[in-house]
Amino acid sequence: MNGSDFHIRKLVIVGVGLIGGSLALALKRAGSVGQVVGVGRSRANLDKAIEAGAIDAVAGNVRDAAQDADLVVLATPVNTINEYLEELACVAEEGAVITDVGSVKEDIMHAARRALGKNYSRFVPGHPVAGREKSGIDAATGELFRNHKVVLTPESETDASALSRIRAMWETTGASIVLMDRREHDAVLSLTSHLPHILAYVMMDCLAGADNAERCYEMTAGGFYDFTRTASSDPEMWRDISMMNRERLLLDIGRYQARLEEIAAMIRNGEEDRLEKVFADAREARSYVTERRIPAS
Amino acid sequence: MNGSDFHIRKLVIVGVGLIGGSLALALKRAGSVGQVVGVGRSRANLDKAIEAGAIDAVAGNVRDAAQDADLVVLATPVNTINEYLEELACVAEEGAVITDVGSVKEDIMHAARRALGKNYSRFVPGHPVAGREKSGIDAATGELFRNHKVVLTPESETDASALSRIRAMWETTGASIVLMDRREHDAVLSLTSHLPHILAYVMMDCLAGADNAERCYEMTAGGFYDFTRTASSDPEMWRDISMMNRERLLLDIGRYQARLEEIAAMIRNGEEDRLEKVFADAREARSYVTERRIPAS
Repeated sequence: MNGSDFHIRKLVIVGVGLIGGSLALALKRAGSVGQVVGVGRSRANLDKAIEAGAIDAVAGNVRDAAQDADLVVLATPVNTINEYLEELACVAEEGAVITDVGSVKEDIMHAARRALGKNYSRFVPGHPVAGREKSGIDAATGELFRNHKVVLTPESETDASALSRIRAMWETTGASIVLMDRREHDAVLSLTSHLPHILAYVMMDCLAGADNAERCYEMTAGGFYDFTRTASSDPEMWRDISMMNRERLLLDIGRYQARLEEIAAMIRNGEEDRLEKVFADAREARSYVTERRIPAS
Repeated sequence: MNGSDFHIRKLVIVGVGLIGGSLALALKRAGSVGQVVGVGRSRANLDKAIEAGAIDAVAGNVRDAAQDADLVVLATPVNTINEYLEELACVAEEGAVITDVGSVKEDIMHAARRALGKNYSRFVPGHPVAGREKSGIDAATGELFRNHKVVLTPESETDASALSRIRAMWETTGASIVLMDRREHDAVLSLTSHLPHILAYVMMDCLAGADNAERCYEMTAGGFYDFTRTASSDPEMWRDISMMNRERLLLDIGRYQARLEEIAAMIRNGEEDRLEKVFADAREARSYVTERRIPAS
């Protein structure tokens, strides 16, 4: 199956925010979906999603929504996925494919295995790496995933046709698929996403707590603005991600602290050559990132 | 005097790179300058500056260039400003105004006082806060300073008409002027610019040194890209800034380390509420920065 002949009769989106809403919009525009049913805590938000053309109908709970569904996407905050998974045990039994979009995979996959039991094979763990500092249905766009990566972390028992459907779904949105082991995913995301978020939050925290904070606010320029962009991300979401990927994140924070201390020592001791070498190597690494970068939508 | 009736008969730019070149281009376009003479180590670079229309002529050394000059702008790397200042002692004697664009003010002002002696009053210390990760004349543009801030840090003995000329010069480029004490400048820049540069370099350093570096490079997304933008800055320049503002920078690195450790402890100890509060407050501080931000050119 490839993206072009991919079709979902009935799709359920649980959590119609930035990610869930953008996915629905992309699939609708591609003509790859019949009916989209939204489930969420806020009725006002779901009404906006209907108005935006992301969903066709609203259901009061996941069980009702998932009746006869082909595919259920869990796009709620990571700490609520567990409860939804328990409600979905019977839906998986009836043959629907279930996937998620959580930024941490190991914790969620343990929960899914517990909740779904023998139907765990119908669960395809996923993570579209396409966050924004904005959130909610108002920020949703059918272009969000174009030229972005979606990581899928199937296990040996994951049903091959279920995996193939989820792969096709994401390819339809313009994303490219990367397959990884769940532990590898969580380690890579800790270093490339979770750590930078923490560091940016700490930077803003330091500035806000400084004696000369007002002057500092006044003088922030483009570099500072970009550096702290991730500090505008949703605090609840990042609290949960920090907790769920705690072990790896603490490891990376520790490595960062050690390296920062080494570099502070170079500054303290006037080791100019070593310092310049660190900066030059870092710049080279960044240009490697820049060159490989596909401009995102 | 205001920007509109400001005119320089003969301007000398020492160091025709991103900042020096952009300043010359802006003044030329505004019709606010007669002749611009460039001085620099690289003849090829100066030829490019002539071709770009930034300068009209090239001089072999600062003394020759500064003959009959109204205004001399030192736009070389911060660690070379000292030697040029010594060459300029006699030029200041003849009435020219001298200014610089260095990112650290206290060190440079001490050097200027030593070099210029009783003519120190003709030196107006300046810092256009408009860096880019790109450098060199190729990146220069007459729009670089529009809607950016230029900090001037005059002392009690600074000549009022000299200060007024430098203020008018920068206003002509579209920048707005902020007057500060030199110590305040160095403290504010340490926290809003020097520290984020160091932190971004350390982030790239950690990623490059990781076991899973290749996978990490592949998975970096927009947040990481923005977070590390300042790590593409010139290593030699940032080595010198780190050294010249060493005391304040080490103080800020220390405060950052302490706060990072506190936040790591919250993650370690599962203090979810405190962690969310830190993130929420940091986001609020960032939105304060965002709201006050004038989009730069």
